[in-house]
Amino acid sequence: MLTDLTRCSIHTMTMRPWSLAQTISGLQRVGVPGITVWRQHLQPYGAEVAGRMLRASGLRVTALCRGGFFPAKDKPAREAALVDNRRAIDEAVTIGAPMVVLVCGAVPGMPLSEARQQIHDGIAALEPYAKANRVKLAIEPLHPLYAADRSAVNTMAQARAICEAVRSPWVGIAADVYHIWWDPDAEVELARAGAAGWLCGFHVCDWRVETRDLLNDRGLMGEGCIDIPHLRNAAERAGFTGFNEVEIFSTTRWAGDQDAWLDAIVDAYRRYT
Amino acid sequence: MLTDLTRCSIHTMTMRPWSLAQTISGLQRVGVPGITVWRQHLQPYGAEVAGRMLRASGLRVTALCRGGFFPAKDKPAREAALVDNRRAIDEAVTIGAPMVVLVCGAVPGMPLSEARQQIHDGIAALEPYAKANRVKLAIEPLHPLYAADRSAVNTMAQARAICEAVRSPWVGIAADVYHIWWDPDAEVELARAGAAGWLCGFHVCDWRVETRDLLNDRGLMGEGCIDIPHLRNAAERAGFTGFNEVEIFSTTRWAGDQDAWLDAIVDAYRRYT
Repeated sequence: MLTDLTRCSIHTMTMRPWSLAQTISGLQRVGVPGITVWRQHLQPYGAEVAGRMLRASGLRVTALCRGGFFPAKDKPAREAALVDNRRAIDEAVTIGAPMVVLVCGAVPGMPLSEARQQIHDGIAALEPYAKANRVKLAIEPLHPLYAADRSAVNTMAQARAICEAVRSPWVGIAADVYHIWWDPDAEVELARAGAAGWLCGFHVCDWRVETRDLLNDRGLMGEGCIDIPHLRNAAERAGFTGFNEVEIFSTTRWAGDQDAWLDAIVDAYRRYT
Repeated sequence: MLTDLTRCSIHTMTMRPWSLAQTISGLQRVGVPGITVWRQHLQPYGAEVAGRMLRASGLRVTALCRGGFFPAKDKPAREAALVDNRRAIDEAVTIGAPMVVLVCGAVPGMPLSEARQQIHDGIAALEPYAKANRVKLAIEPLHPLYAADRSAVNTMAQARAICEAVRSPWVGIAADVYHIWWDPDAEVELARAGAAGWLCGFHVCDWRVETRDLLNDRGLMGEGCIDIPHLRNAAERAGFTGFNEVEIFSTTRWAGDQDAWLDAIVDAYRRYT
């Protein structure tokens, strides 16, 4: 159990109905020091203005979400994805985010082996730009539930294999308990990623036993069946000292009062993370 | 692509609204030679009567679904699960099913490592009874989507590890494309299971890209993103010569005319399996 909020960060997507300005003041009100910014919450301001707001807020920007979506049926579309990823890196620099989280992508109908190759190639092609800009690329393995259209990288082991192939201090892994909790190799892979210096992000939420929606029914910590402290401790034993980022997509929660939702998050963070 | 139905079997659950008698005559009408019987479709008749109906039908009973659900919070509940699994084996004998498919179970809140140990212990405890009755126990790894409450065995590799530990010709693996398609190790694990003589079941359906329900929104072959012939060929290269069992849970399909649904299955089986 965590006794304080010093390593707590919240994704703007967790407070989806709020603007970036509203989320910033919300986090200031409850004393959460970190914020991970999603690009759709940047967009209304532009990265320059958003960067000024974030610097003025005193909040620590933990990451920019999200880049990735590398695989595509033709070369121009893959090139366009790289262009967009470079733009994400630019935005990360502008708002002071140390990393861009990568949801690697998948194309329905494309063999997963091909998508996985294209993901490797995309990350390798992007790495020099990340390095030049001193922004990390954080590969987030997604639950196999999302293999059809969101990510063909579905385990920590696959993310590690990409890190091993690309071998750059600018390519690492963001581990999300929602995506990895079921994996019998989760702990050993957290240890490996940590030992190699690749573990750069850690996301928390919970898996609701009766999940009602495949995308937007994540649970608040404590509401589901994930042993979050167990995985967090495994990450910390592996040397992880970064923020625990609260990333919860929930249609139900987004429909309610967001201040009350934020209070519930902070309470659950202290009790169940 | 399969040119004939000689290795086609259909689960009674695929035709859920139908009674066993209705499914038997449906399969006879369309010339599908195999049937896998779910216990809830046996129950209204009892295994004796159902066995007589099945023998008279000339259909080949490919499996009984399902046993398993080994983990439980206390010993009496685990013992009760074993009693029920022995009853499933008895029913399999009575209806002439060569195997009982195991959905291994999981208990929300119980660490997966513990559930996995209890599954191993349950299968090991059940094996002598399976052997004595000459009924195979087919471990079906379930998609990680179901790790919370249905099965803590979520990959072919985990099922293989249990087979390796128990080492019995009466314990094998039922591979379902729905559960394994995302797995980067699916092919190599099919090869390993086949080479060891453990691959005893093969289930087909499809993964709908826009899955609307976690349990009952499986797709008909061709409706989703699984490369079924690819996996079927991998199983056959590994020596699998058994039936391709069509197992589709679909609230939408169950709500429609079941004769039309059965015709659609047969058509899709020929085109996309």
